[in-house]
Amino acid sequence: MSAQRDFITVGVIGAGRIGKIHAENLAYRIPDARILAIADIQPEAAQQTAARLNIPTASADYHDLLNNKDIDAVIICSATDTHARIIEEASAARKHIFCEKPIDLDLKRIDQALAAVDRAGVKLQVGFNRRYDSNFRAIHEAVKAGKVGEPHILRITSRDPAPPPISYVKVSGGIFLDMTIHDFDMARYLVGSEVTEVYAAGGVLIDPQIGAAGDIDTAAVTLRFANGAIGVIDNSRKAVYGYDQRAEVFGSGGAVSTSNNAAHTAVISDAAGVHGPLPLYFFLERYTDSYIAEMREFIDCIKNNTAPSVTGVDARKATVIGLAARKSAQENRPVKVSEI
Amino acid sequence: MSAQRDFITVGVIGAGRIGKIHAENLAYRIPDARILAIADIQPEAAQQTAARLNIPTASADYHDLLNNKDIDAVIICSATDTHARIIEEASAARKHIFCEKPIDLDLKRIDQALAAVDRAGVKLQVGFNRRYDSNFRAIHEAVKAGKVGEPHILRITSRDPAPPPISYVKVSGGIFLDMTIHDFDMARYLVGSEVTEVYAAGGVLIDPQIGAAGDIDTAAVTLRFANGAIGVIDNSRKAVYGYDQRAEVFGSGGAVSTSNNAAHTAVISDAAGVHGPLPLYFFLERYTDSYIAEMREFIDCIKNNTAPSVTGVDARKATVIGLAARKSAQENRPVKVSEI
Amino acid sequence: MSAQRDFITVGVIGAGRIGKIHAENLAYRIPDARILAIADIQPEAAQQTAARLNIPTASADYHDLLNNKDIDAVIICSATDTHARIIEEASAARKHIFCEKPIDLDLKRIDQALAAVDRAGVKLQVGFNRRYDSNFRAIHEAVKAGKVGEPHILRITSRDPAPPPISYVKVSGGIFLDMTIHDFDMARYLVGSEVTEVYAAGGVLIDPQIGAAGDIDTAAVTLRFANGAIGVIDNSRKAVYGYDQRAEVFGSGGAVSTSNNAAHTAVISDAAGVHGPLPLYFFLERYTDSYIAEMREFIDCIKNNTAPSVTGVDARKATVIGLAARKSAQENRPVKVSEI
Amino acid sequence: MSAQRDFITVGVIGAGRIGKIHAENLAYRIPDARILAIADIQPEAAQQTAARLNIPTASADYHDLLNNKDIDAVIICSATDTHARIIEEASAARKHIFCEKPIDLDLKRIDQALAAVDRAGVKLQVGFNRRYDSNFRAIHEAVKAGKVGEPHILRITSRDPAPPPISYVKVSGGIFLDMTIHDFDMARYLVGSEVTEVYAAGGVLIDPQIGAAGDIDTAAVTLRFANGAIGVIDNSRKAVYGYDQRAEVFGSGGAVSTSNNAAHTAVISDAAGVHGPLPLYFFLERYTDSYIAEMREFIDCIKNNTAPSVTGVDARKATVIGLAARKSAQENRPVKVSEI
Repeated sequence: MSAQRDFITVGVIGAGRIGKIHAENLAYRIPDARILAIADIQPEAAQQTAARLNIPTASADYHDLLNNKDIDAVIICSATDTHARIIEEASAARKHIFCEKPIDLDLKRIDQALAAVDRAGVKLQVGFNRRYDSNFRAIHEAVKAGKVGEPHILRITSRDPAPPPISYVKVSGGIFLDMTIHDFDMARYLVGSEVTEVYAAGGVLIDPQIGAAGDIDTAAVTLRFANGAIGVIDNSRKAVYGYDQRAEVFGSGGAVSTSNNAAHTAVISDAAGVHGPLPLYFFLERYTDSYIAEMREFIDCIKNNTAPSVTGVDARKATVIGLAARKSAQENRPVKVSEI
Repeated sequence: MSAQRDFITVGVIGAGRIGKIHAENLAYRIPDARILAIADIQPEAAQQTAARLNIPTASADYHDLLNNKDIDAVIICSATDTHARIIEEASAARKHIFCEKPIDLDLKRIDQALAAVDRAGVKLQVGFNRRYDSNFRAIHEAVKAGKVGEPHILRITSRDPAPPPISYVKVSGGIFLDMTIHDFDMARYLVGSEVTEVYAAGGVLIDPQIGAAGDIDTAAVTLRFANGAIGVIDNSRKAVYGYDQRAEVFGSGGAVSTSNNAAHTAVISDAAGVHGPLPLYFFLERYTDSYIAEMREFIDCIKNNTAPSVTGVDARKATVIGLAARKSAQENRPVKVSEI
Repeated sequence: MSAQRDFITVGVIGAGRIGKIHAENLAYRIPDARILAIADIQPEAAQQTAARLNIPTASADYHDLLNNKDIDAVIICSATDTHARIIEEASAARKHIFCEKPIDLDLKRIDQALAAVDRAGVKLQVGFNRRYDSNFRAIHEAVKAGKVGEPHILRITSRDPAPPPISYVKVSGGIFLDMTIHDFDMARYLVGSEVTEVYAAGGVLIDPQIGAAGDIDTAAVTLRFANGAIGVIDNSRKAVYGYDQRAEVFGSGGAVSTSNNAAHTAVISDAAGVHGPLPLYFFLERYTDSYIAEMREFIDCIKNNTAPSVTGVDARKATVIGLAARKSAQENRPVKVSEI
Repeated sequence: MSAQRDFITVGVIGAGRIGKIHAENLAYRIPDARILAIADIQPEAAQQTAARLNIPTASADYHDLLNNKDIDAVIICSATDTHARIIEEASAARKHIFCEKPIDLDLKRIDQALAAVDRAGVKLQVGFNRRYDSNFRAIHEAVKAGKVGEPHILRITSRDPAPPPISYVKVSGGIFLDMTIHDFDMARYLVGSEVTEVYAAGGVLIDPQIGAAGDIDTAAVTLRFANGAIGVIDNSRKAVYGYDQRAEVFGSGGAVSTSNNAAHTAVISDAAGVHGPLPLYFFLERYTDSYIAEMREFIDCIKNNTAPSVTGVDARKATVIGLAARKSAQENRPVKVSEI
């Protein structure tokens, strides 16, 4: 941030679904930020969002943003296979970087990108937004404050309301790197210890096309942590009642657990039963506030020159666990994280 | 709205606590609105908010706003005893009006103000924001949809976390016109029938100074509705666990009830018990979204030339019930609304 | 209890619904009690229960029990209009007495019966079984332990799943003396202070025949207590979702509240909502354990020569409040308990 | 049952903790049963229970019960290593058999015992009492009724409040055959499909003495079912907040889950939080009703000559899964049930 301004200037790269969320949050919810430009390989997408949010410049080429001396930071929301490259280029351009997860599915590329960030000395925050969710944060803080003693057991339930298109499944890297990766990061965040071994059991129970694409749609993952704790994660690509996002940490002093969020608390009792509202439908509804909070932290880190709490190392570690889980499911055996 | 613009221009009158909330919501959360000016009898208050929200004009005199031809609508957040007068003046200036409750504590003044609105043909929406809360809206919709059959019993619990300053208590009109008035409006909204009779029992259990100021701090009110339903409201000025805002409608086909909102769902189980989070502390936290929703409706009504759902008549009716409750408490007898 | 025995001998008067419950509990659940005889004006009723529970003697005349020197105590479960007389006769026969509520609907008759008990020095316990329910007991104990500070507001919701037969309504004494009387006793039990004034609002919303029988089926009652607290009770004769029995005490230090009991905790989430089990259907299901607990206390009081916790005075006080409520509803005004 | 009697005569073998529970339930809660004799290798134990429950005969040798022609059925509650032998002897004596789990830790001995039962044509019911718990039964019935569609994921949390004595741990067969065996039976009961593969991860996190005894105290088990479903069970020997017994079945049409039972529903809200009651402490409190229900079914099966719903085959299958889990934990690999 230049000494003359009291706000951070931002360029948004990618005007797809998540790019639009971040742009809108930066425009309306974070007074300390100003979006100067937005880029998308589809020029109309960039122009539409620019028009809607009063963003001065729309571009088809993200290099325009990197070359703009007035921009302090970029928000990388482009396709996954561009993340590592743009991180490297943005680092070279001395821009602070917020990048959506994953950085890459290949560990070498991640390492190269992180090295570029280190060399440039810019800040890098990765989009594990769920850490900013008030429910999971409350677990994290309870564990950290010793409210449940030493962690012994972690339970995460993470089920999507509906599977993505098969076309997406094919390029997603598989359920463990696309979906469970959030839970792997969550596991480290909640337990406060590193994962050392993974056992993943999966199946194709929802849609045979997912199986034909080489992926699974239902999974249970066992984690072992360095501190001795054990974790279980269960995943499904299709929960008909909506987005199911719960966690629990059990320890020597007790347990802390969360339930789902709903749009309201109204419960109807009639002759057939007692009926409550469904969980919020999917991540856009469920994690609305966490997207704002993570972006606010990113802007604050730049403003105050502090370190982001979700780093490139976190992104790398979750990816390693995901690769271990994929290997475990393929070979049906526990896989040590050190094998990856 | 002029034909040339696709947004509504607004002036905010009063830059106190609620004025700032509405201004911030209009600035950041409602793209269809633009605040052109803000006024407050304390010029610095207006200037500070103007600076913070990029409002072009700050003024010490709200007449400046009324005289501004570019302004479509005013948001009246000034002291209660100015509401009726400003409504009349704003009507004369052909501004649409959003006015905080109450319009006045005197029915004649309300009637004069509403007559001015009618003559001018401008829109008037009154700030019964709780109608826009998702919990209470869900009750309203369930009742309207016949999910609980014919309403028989209404229960409202409405307790503040802490009493207002004694200086405020003295000019507030008393608990029934200051605090319970929201519940009276809620009663009509949830049951869908008019209140015909009120019995109010109250006491001074929290702070003798409230009693010395001629008010009470704890109350239970019984309502009779035109459709035969019966309602009970309980109020306290001091719930140590936070803002307690619940309601239930019971009917021939079942019941619908809501519970409080909390900041998260994390529950800690330890050797001493199972511990959940407190309710959100007070109205700013609890009703954040409802303030946005009510303002969005107001702007939409102007834009689309539709009628606001919370009208001057609603404000008048809640005031009448409040006056009946006050009389009932003073005379310790049920009071017909028609007596007022 | 004779010195030779280590159990209490009992005679049961009345083999109707509640008589059978008490007899079964005494036979199977309370090892310290032995039923020696059961009487009912319908001899077959007494004989059937005697046969089923291995009770040695069945009789058509309860005087047989009173004349039986081996019997320590009688359980009066006959028709309400016989309670006072049997209490007097049992007192004269030096039997300890458990009597179902109410003792009588006439205060003079109650006073005569209580005087007879006093003269005889026998124990009298009255069947306000809800005091032995674990939910309400937990409120009582929390209040007594100061967990909610000074009580300010009491809320009781008490709704039956279905109205009694019209024939019963006609002789019941009306909703306040038949149904709400339990809530009046509960109010004193939970708040720990005496009721001084009552305002009752009621209506006929469920069945016009109840109105034709001179009664009401829906009510809201406001109570004022000697300690300044205010209470609200809402009643309905027909909650389609089952027996609704909840209470809450709010005070200067917090609140304690209970919810309904269900047969299990299983919750089904499907595409339509989140569905839980209904409350237990009616008092037989809901208060099963409290009937056992009250009878166990009665037997223990005899065995250990201690005083029952629910006395004739309690029965009288609840009746007085009920009479005040009836008068209040008739005259539509608050009625002081001292008027009765 | 002889034609002359309308009740079933029972002998209880073993007057330890669980033997006393069954004896008391048979004596007080199941009118169709009469206990004629009780045996225990410690004669005073048998005598004390006999005296307390009016059981005619107490014996130091269970053969006395087997030789008693008047006895229809025996309840085997002796030490685990005697179960198989007594089943064989009781079968030879043509007694119906209720046997506590496990039948034996050795599959061959189980097979021999079950063969003896088959040859004799007597009934054998095994004490997987949790199947009779209303919560788990509600899940079972919801799944069976198709309320959650095809089962995809099973979750069981099963945590004891406190570990058993180390002396018991040493002879228990290990956590999987002593504690998790209930969950393995529950898994089959809830999902309605057979377990085909097991992966067990465990650790010693609570008490090093448990490790020194060759056992573990914390575990997570992954199950694969024949129908493709996946299950996760988490176990701990020490939950400081009490007995944690929850389950969930998730499927193509939704999910059904249960929570813990508490002694009451009273929730206290104070300035520090919202505090609810702890779960019931341990199996005696939590499963009180299920012990009665399983015994009632056993007596009914004899009376009506129907087949018990929890059979010797069920006991064998849970043991096989337990052995597979033990092997899996020892070898840290998934183990097929067919390997055992």
